[in-house]
Amino acid sequence: MRTFLDCIPCQIQQALQAVRQVSDDEKLAESILRSALFLASKIDYSKPPALIGREIHAQIRAETKNNDPYAAIKKKANETALSVAPAIREEIIASDDPFQTAVRYAIAGNILDFALYNGWDDDRFQKNLQAARSKPINLAQVNELRDKIAAVQNILFIADNAGETVFDRLLLEQMPDKDITYAVKGYPIINDALREDAIFAGIDKFATIIDNGADCAGTVLSLCSRSFMDVFNHAELVIVKGQANFETLCNTRRPINFLTQIKCSIIARDLNGEVGDWVITSSEQVQSGQK
Amino acid sequence: MRTFLDCIPCQIQQALQAVRQVSDDEKLAESILRSALFLASKIDYSKPPALIGREIHAQIRAETKNNDPYAAIKKKANETALSVAPAIREEIIASDDPFQTAVRYAIAGNILDFALYNGWDDDRFQKNLQAARSKPINLAQVNELRDKIAAVQNILFIADNAGETVFDRLLLEQMPDKDITYAVKGYPIINDALREDAIFAGIDKFATIIDNGADCAGTVLSLCSRSFMDVFNHAELVIVKGQANFETLCNTRRPINFLTQIKCSIIARDLNGEVGDWVITSSEQVQSGQK
Repeated sequence: MRTFLDCIPCQIQQALQAVRQVSDDEKLAESILRSALFLASKIDYSKPPALIGREIHAQIRAETKNNDPYAAIKKKANETALSVAPAIREEIIASDDPFQTAVRYAIAGNILDFALYNGWDDDRFQKNLQAARSKPINLAQVNELRDKIAAVQNILFIADNAGETVFDRLLLEQMPDKDITYAVKGYPIINDALREDAIFAGIDKFATIIDNGADCAGTVLSLCSRSFMDVFNHAELVIVKGQANFETLCNTRRPINFLTQIKCSIIARDLNGEVGDWVITSSEQVQSGQK
Repeated sequence: MRTFLDCIPCQIQQALQAVRQVSDDEKLAESILRSALFLASKIDYSKPPALIGREIHAQIRAETKNNDPYAAIKKKANETALSVAPAIREEIIASDDPFQTAVRYAIAGNILDFALYNGWDDDRFQKNLQAARSKPINLAQVNELRDKIAAVQNILFIADNAGETVFDRLLLEQMPDKDITYAVKGYPIINDALREDAIFAGIDKFATIIDNGADCAGTVLSLCSRSFMDVFNHAELVIVKGQANFETLCNTRRPINFLTQIKCSIIARDLNGEVGDWVITSSEQVQSGQK
């Protein structure tokens, strides 16, 4: 997806939010803000918005001399998600349709996004967990995904955020007989999951963990490592979490399945949905206009 | 008021909204957006946010080759406000406290702001008129303003938006024995009132209309004409409408009385209020921290 003009004020807002999440220094905030403005005034809008974020966050890391400024919030997300996992697992197993229930919680976990949301909000987290029980989702799409999984052996699952990894694990538990590769980011970027977050969630018991070699939100294929691309190109099925991965992969040629919350009006327009919707879709559907 | 860092994403959003209100050309929108970003990356944040808007809107006027791109929306605001004026005048006259009721409608009219709000929204307008009957306002402040008006002969009333002028007139009708000067902008800027809007509202029957000589939202004294400054410095009482006038005049030495809606979180913080509040205050109260 290209960067729409409406993405720009949001990117500027995110830059300011980002630096404030990692530092109280208003001079640093001003410096990052001015850099983000200058960058956004020059950058090529045919590229996805994640690339603006990549440069902004690289600068935040450099100016704070902190290679992983979201470490504390990732730890909080991981620990909180892990603390609720046993009860949710029981609920999934006891439900009429464990796969559907696990898909619901996997999308609920996508709320753990600190690019768009500012700081930890327990109320927001709990409301999302509750929503997993009742939120409207497209059941035909759940069944289509179920059938696609049943038809293959080899699956690439591309992660989004730390903490969300715990909910991904609960979904992976519903695919016990598959060969799954779980891909995280290569380097810290916002609160996106790294290898350590996947291991914290116990993903290694259900999948081979790889990283994509990149330091950018979403999956910008041109930034990914050769070894990641090899897995990406050869996986029989690719399942992808989150909005940044949707933005960066929705126009890719190979078939991809997306599980995400809609968090902005641009993506909502792209998906014929509303901000707040939970979406299960595929690149074929998006590209054919079915959405 | 200086430009806070949080004002910047909002200014960028406003720049994009502004160009889209006056043109469908997305290339023009991109050009204005990029200029706004570049400008905001360089501008002195010790100055009020209105100065960023001034440069952005000058560029919109230049690039659209349209000296008054908000003319149509000002006409709509003027005509709609005038159409509801007779019924509101009757309500004011019949009320227990006509001055208070007129103050309420004068603040309700401050919703006619197309810098912050995108396009005409009849529902928003009607809701504001209804709110005039019941919205909590500080009655002690209403009475203080009433007493201040009673104690002077010579009043400068500084306008905000076109259409809001009609509601200002209804308030001026409650000060029949005063010498009132009503100040509008010198040149088109967003949908701010010009001389023609004041005349359309019939202000000339109740006040001497002057312009401030400036092409900037609010009242940036360094941009105002000598003749305006003469009136400003010598008026016994100054009453000012709207948030941009508050932003640009709240730290001025001479006593000023403000009537405005709070439309952003920065002003809300400054006034110990909430976005959406209706405020009657004075520079003395703001500067002393009473607010």
